[in-house]
Amino acid sequence: MDNRAIGFMDSGVGGLTVVREALRQLPLESVCFIGDQARLPYGPRSSDEVRQFSEQMAAFLTHQDIKMLVIACNTATSAALKDLQEKLSIPVIGVISPGSRAALKATRNRRIGVIGTEGTIKSRAYEKAILSKDNSVKVFSLACPKFVPLVESNEYNSPIAKKIVAETLQFFESKNVDTLILGCTHYPLLRPIIQDVMGKQVKLIDSGAETVGTVSALLDYFEIAKDSAGDQIKDAYYTTASPVSFNQIASQWLGIDIQSKKAKIDELELGK
Amino acid sequence: MDNRAIGFMDSGVGGLTVVREALRQLPLESVCFIGDQARLPYGPRSSDEVRQFSEQMAAFLTHQDIKMLVIACNTATSAALKDLQEKLSIPVIGVISPGSRAALKATRNRRIGVIGTEGTIKSRAYEKAILSKDNSVKVFSLACPKFVPLVESNEYNSPIAKKIVAETLQFFESKNVDTLILGCTHYPLLRPIIQDVMGKQVKLIDSGAETVGTVSALLDYFEIAKDSAGDQIKDAYYTTASPVSFNQIASQWLGIDIQSKKAKIDELELGK
Repeated sequence: MDNRAIGFMDSGVGGLTVVREALRQLPLESVCFIGDQARLPYGPRSSDEVRQFSEQMAAFLTHQDIKMLVIACNTATSAALKDLQEKLSIPVIGVISPGSRAALKATRNRRIGVIGTEGTIKSRAYEKAILSKDNSVKVFSLACPKFVPLVESNEYNSPIAKKIVAETLQFFESKNVDTLILGCTHYPLLRPIIQDVMGKQVKLIDSGAETVGTVSALLDYFEIAKDSAGDQIKDAYYTTASPVSFNQIASQWLGIDIQSKKAKIDELELGK
Repeated sequence: MDNRAIGFMDSGVGGLTVVREALRQLPLESVCFIGDQARLPYGPRSSDEVRQFSEQMAAFLTHQDIKMLVIACNTATSAALKDLQEKLSIPVIGVISPGSRAALKATRNRRIGVIGTEGTIKSRAYEKAILSKDNSVKVFSLACPKFVPLVESNEYNSPIAKKIVAETLQFFESKNVDTLILGCTHYPLLRPIIQDVMGKQVKLIDSGAETVGTVSALLDYFEIAKDSAGDQIKDAYYTTASPVSFNQIASQWLGIDIQSKKAKIDELELGK
C-alpha cells in the first residue's frame, strides 16, 4: 500500500486524456499532473532537448512526492523513457509499449497504422515495439505535425480541423490497415473526426487510455495501490504557462473544476 | 532480453484458454504448460491443498527453466499467488487482478458479476480486488461447481451444458449486472452459451485473456521479452494424467497438433 499520488507529465494538455482515464479506472488514486505548455509543441524538437525538458518535469513531480511516474506524452516517451527509468527509483511508464500491445491485440489483418508527432514517428519507437513482438506485422507510420496545435488552440472540433485531418490521413487510403494507433495523447480529442475519416471498420487505439491499464497492473504487481480506507490526497495540476487557459481546456475535458497552478521548472535538474 | 519460455500452470486444460491468447498476442514467445488433470477439479479442495499442489506445479515448471510464471487458474491464484510470489525469484502473475481490472474498465453501471469455482468464490478474491480499487461497485458472486466437469469431459457444447448453464445463471436474473467475470479459465469454452443466457448487453470478461496483457506489460517493464532474432524454444505441454485425452482436447482448442508428455509432480517441492 502506498497512498502517494501518481505523477503524469506531458508537453501540454494532451496528457489529460490519460488522466481522465485514470480518474475513471482508478478513482481512489490521486493524480499530480504537469503540462509544459510554455514550451510546446515537443514534436519538432530534438530528442536531446525533449529529454532535458522531460527530466525537468520529472524533477518537479518527484519533488511533489509521487509513487509512480507516467510519461503521458509519446514524444517524451520515445526520447526519455529509458533515461528516466534508469535515473528514478520509482516505476516509470511510457505510453508507447501499452499502445503497441493494444494494437497487436486488436489487429486481425496484421496491418497497423501509427500517427504521431514528427519526433515520435522519426524515433520509430512504435514500429520497433510492435515488430519486436511480431515481425510479421506491417506498420505504416505518419507524422501529423498539424494536429497538436489544433488541440492546444481548442480548435479540435472546428471545420478546419475536419479539413486538416481528412487531408493528412489520405496517406492511409490504400494501406488497408485495420488498426490505427493514436500515437499522441492530444489525438483522442480528434477521435470522432479521425474515426470518420478512417471508417468505422478501423479500430482506433488510444495509447494513453491503454497506459492506465499498465499503471493499474504495476500498482497491483508492486503492491503500491492506495489503501482504500486511507485519506485521499487532493489531485494537483500544474502548467508552465497560463493557468487560466489550462483550467478552461482541462475543465472542459475532464468535466471537473480544475484550479491549476503555475510551475517554474526550466532550471530544475533531476536528483538535485 | 530473455529467450526462456513463459510457464503456465492450471488444474487441467482450462489454462489452455490463456495459452491460446498468449500464442496469438505473443507469437515470438515460447510456452511451457502443465495441467494437473490427475487431481482436478481444484475448486472443491481446501486452499491449503491447492497451495501444496500449486507449489508442486511451480517446482516442475521452474525446473524447465522458465522466465515468468502465470498461474492460469483462478482457484490456484486465490490460494497460492502470494505464496509463490514470495518463494520464487521470477515474476509470478495470477489471473484475478487482470480480470478485476478489466471488469472495472468495462462496467458502466458499476454492477459486476463474478462466476468461478467454489474455492475462488469462497476466497472472495475478486470482490476484494475490485472493491480495493473502487468501493462504489456492487459485486455479485456465484460458485458454479458444475461448469469445470462439463469442460473437462468435452461436453461444453452439448444440450446438457446449455441446460446447466441456464439453470445456474438464473441467479443473475434480477441483479442487473452489465459485466460478468468468467472467473475460471475453463469458462471461456462455455462462453457462447453463457453470453446467450446473460444477454448480449452483458460484457463478458475473460480473465485469462486479460492476463496475457499483464504478461506482455511485465515482459516489457522488466525487459525480458524474447529477442526477436533469437531462436525460439519449442513449446512444451505436460499433463499429470493421460496425454492422449489432453492432446485431443488441447489440439481441438488451440488448433495445433500438440504432443504432450506425462509429468510426475506429486512429490516435488519448491526449491529442492
